[in-house]
Amino acid sequence: MTPSNTPSGRRHLLGINGLAPQEIVDLLDRAETAVAISRRPDKKNSVLKGRTQINLFFEASTRTQASFEIAGKRLGADVMNMSVANSSVKKGETLIDTAMTLNAMQPDILIVRHHAAGAVALLAQKVACSVVNAGDGQHEHPTQALLDALTIRRHKGKIERLTVAICGDVLHSRVARSNILLLNALGARVRVVAPSTLLPSGIEKMGVEVFHRMEDGLAGADVVMMLRLQRERMEGAFVPSVREYFRYFGLDGEKLRAAKPDALVMHPGPMNRGVEIASDIADGPQSVIEEQVEMGVAVRMAVIEALVSHNGEPR
Amino acid sequence: MTPSNTPSGRRHLLGINGLAPQEIVDLLDRAETAVAISRRPDKKNSVLKGRTQINLFFEASTRTQASFEIAGKRLGADVMNMSVANSSVKKGETLIDTAMTLNAMQPDILIVRHHAAGAVALLAQKVACSVVNAGDGQHEHPTQALLDALTIRRHKGKIERLTVAICGDVLHSRVARSNILLLNALGARVRVVAPSTLLPSGIEKMGVEVFHRMEDGLAGADVVMMLRLQRERMEGAFVPSVREYFRYFGLDGEKLRAAKPDALVMHPGPMNRGVEIASDIADGPQSVIEEQVEMGVAVRMAVIEALVSHNGEPR
Amino acid sequence: MTPSNTPSGRRHLLGINGLAPQEIVDLLDRAETAVAISRRPDKKNSVLKGRTQINLFFEASTRTQASFEIAGKRLGADVMNMSVANSSVKKGETLIDTAMTLNAMQPDILIVRHHAAGAVALLAQKVACSVVNAGDGQHEHPTQALLDALTIRRHKGKIERLTVAICGDVLHSRVARSNILLLNALGARVRVVAPSTLLPSGIEKMGVEVFHRMEDGLAGADVVMMLRLQRERMEGAFVPSVREYFRYFGLDGEKLRAAKPDALVMHPGPMNRGVEIASDIADGPQSVIEEQVEMGVAVRMAVIEALVSHNGEPR
Repeated sequence: MTPSNTPSGRRHLLGINGLAPQEIVDLLDRAETAVAISRRPDKKNSVLKGRTQINLFFEASTRTQASFEIAGKRLGADVMNMSVANSSVKKGETLIDTAMTLNAMQPDILIVRHHAAGAVALLAQKVACSVVNAGDGQHEHPTQALLDALTIRRHKGKIERLTVAICGDVLHSRVARSNILLLNALGARVRVVAPSTLLPSGIEKMGVEVFHRMEDGLAGADVVMMLRLQRERMEGAFVPSVREYFRYFGLDGEKLRAAKPDALVMHPGPMNRGVEIASDIADGPQSVIEEQVEMGVAVRMAVIEALVSHNGEPR
Repeated sequence: MTPSNTPSGRRHLLGINGLAPQEIVDLLDRAETAVAISRRPDKKNSVLKGRTQINLFFEASTRTQASFEIAGKRLGADVMNMSVANSSVKKGETLIDTAMTLNAMQPDILIVRHHAAGAVALLAQKVACSVVNAGDGQHEHPTQALLDALTIRRHKGKIERLTVAICGDVLHSRVARSNILLLNALGARVRVVAPSTLLPSGIEKMGVEVFHRMEDGLAGADVVMMLRLQRERMEGAFVPSVREYFRYFGLDGEKLRAAKPDALVMHPGPMNRGVEIASDIADGPQSVIEEQVEMGVAVRMAVIEALVSHNGEPR
Repeated sequence: MTPSNTPSGRRHLLGINGLAPQEIVDLLDRAETAVAISRRPDKKNSVLKGRTQINLFFEASTRTQASFEIAGKRLGADVMNMSVANSSVKKGETLIDTAMTLNAMQPDILIVRHHAAGAVALLAQKVACSVVNAGDGQHEHPTQALLDALTIRRHKGKIERLTVAICGDVLHSRVARSNILLLNALGARVRVVAPSTLLPSGIEKMGVEVFHRMEDGLAGADVVMMLRLQRERMEGAFVPSVREYFRYFGLDGEKLRAAKPDALVMHPGPMNRGVEIASDIADGPQSVIEEQVEMGVAVRMAVIEALVSHNGEPR
């Protein structure tokens, strides 16, 4: 596999943008093998024995970090977590110096999350190892889009021509961005459903249909993807009231009825129950939210193995 | 082994309550093997290779977490630490959603500490893997009771008919509760020694003799278990003065003289030297406090192996 | 190998002080093998399989801790990180009790950083395993001096008779102390270059030449070692202005011209760019700063392996 969208060659996974459809499909196929491995009692596939993976998280995220850590360990790699709280960043070191320092320790792969869009790509240009973007600002979160696609494909058998409604706080969501790119690349029909205050300007140019009412946006949908309302990223007058938000944009049984009867309900987590999604829907028969988490480990195993194997020559 | 006290079957270790005496003895026997392994240069017994253990600590505890981490690694499992500080709990996720998310990553065993009594049992009902209670509120801390029993048995050859005095802050102590249950199950004579303000009401119903003076409670005892004074859990007028507390309830040479000459001195740690125990007693010839820590790793190896082996079929 | 400077025998690496020159050379030779291992795709040398390493950091240091963690894992050991933030130290436990507790978990080696000079040596007297000083107050940081020596030797072929200028905040620097001891032991000519307010009194007795102007101190030097300005350890009137400091003691192209044309530029990191070193020099052709980090992992692999192998008998 050769996912990359940097001039430095096909070494990194920095975003869905720039991936060819066949590269995406190859990753999903590879992830199917990883699903099977993780369901065995012995979940270890030691193909990356002796390799070093560093999780460098400038933004805390237990679930994503845990998913990458488990993925690396199941592949047999030595995995190290470095969170910014304890890091030299506090002593005034620059992002690039931190990256160069880690690079000098000869890791095979860096998994990076950063609060600034573009920071991960910048860092990737400076290091000799592979880099995976685990979320950069409001830019991209490619492994989330891959795990969502894997979950959908396992239920619907394909992505092409499915109608997928992405609903809620699109403005602050790198998850939405990466999903729109991937779903379009594989031929789905993508809709976004949100109040105009929670949509980035020019979203239409990404090849989506825009709706402002859930009933309209969900009509006939095969997949309903809810987004987390990221109130921590909002300011002052623009923070919606939770009660109002739920009334108009929270997914409940009534709104879900507009979608196809076998529509999948998805959420990247962590959920605000009673805000963007009703509890009974989150736990209901159409929900594949837990399966998304399982697919997350599998997709990350696939990505890490593909990148590190490709990068296997001595340095 | 099949320790469990939930209706969901014999998959978990949630407390001493509900364990049959033979189950306790089996665990102690199994732990003896683990003691021998940990004393070898190569301390690795890879019986759980490829298995995944997650330590989920909603309450910080370096020593208990370290003990479980070492135990899991010596068994060959991949061990992941998740502390609440970095977790989605801060983003408003519920306990159950956190558990479901981790469960979807296909761990074989979760080690959980939580500040609320009953939280671990609740969580155990929701997941497909084994769960060990590493301390829940003022409820239970079963592996602490097991390691205490193992330490005693190694010195006294048995538990039955020994007189054990548990002294100090019984009110706030899950250690005391689990110990009372286990010692009674194995036929010891259990005493509690504390000021009445540090005793839960109705403690007599747990099958213990209550004393309010150390000299009386320690008379003829085979084992003296001191408890940590948990001043961080007390409020206002009920916080005893350290000086007064030590005078009446701190274990010093004079008070210890009431016990049998070969009585064991125990403490679950971390110790407040000069508060509940005098330094010379903590470091003295009757103290087995360090050995308790060693037995902690062994007991946890035994528990983890027993639960995971039993749970070994593909899911 | 038998590095040690405690009466307890040759089990620990507590400082450069007390090491024989041959012991230093043996460690550097052993580290060369580790360099080669870390440059392979499979970086694992499982000579310490089943051994337990605990990193006990009372002072946060991501890069040093990461270096020791990677080193231990590449040797096949199980590595555990314990940072003080989560530790029982917060519950009032003493340093010694923390050490005794960890010791009872049967580690083979403890890597310890502490803010107080001498704390690591004190702790080493209390435990049964090997101890490595990863920095204690303003006292010593022996693995930093070893990695610096390895870096120099790889470029210059030797240490003997080289002129090494150590520049900047010598007063607060355990790195400077350990380097002076090591470089003197191997026959280098050592200079320190600093304002008198940043020099410890009596520094001349350590066998160094003292300079107060960079131009004089760097004249004809083979190696220029810059130190981090540790403003966080300074108080009130003694904190120099960054602009003034850089003007007189920051390494820039002009000042570097006084050294030999092929002089190495070194820095232990993390760097304050524009304070003690100009960015173009840090990234320039004479800089070996990244290589120092790589040598750090190799030196730590050598130290850990040497100490643990020597200590290999069952306890």
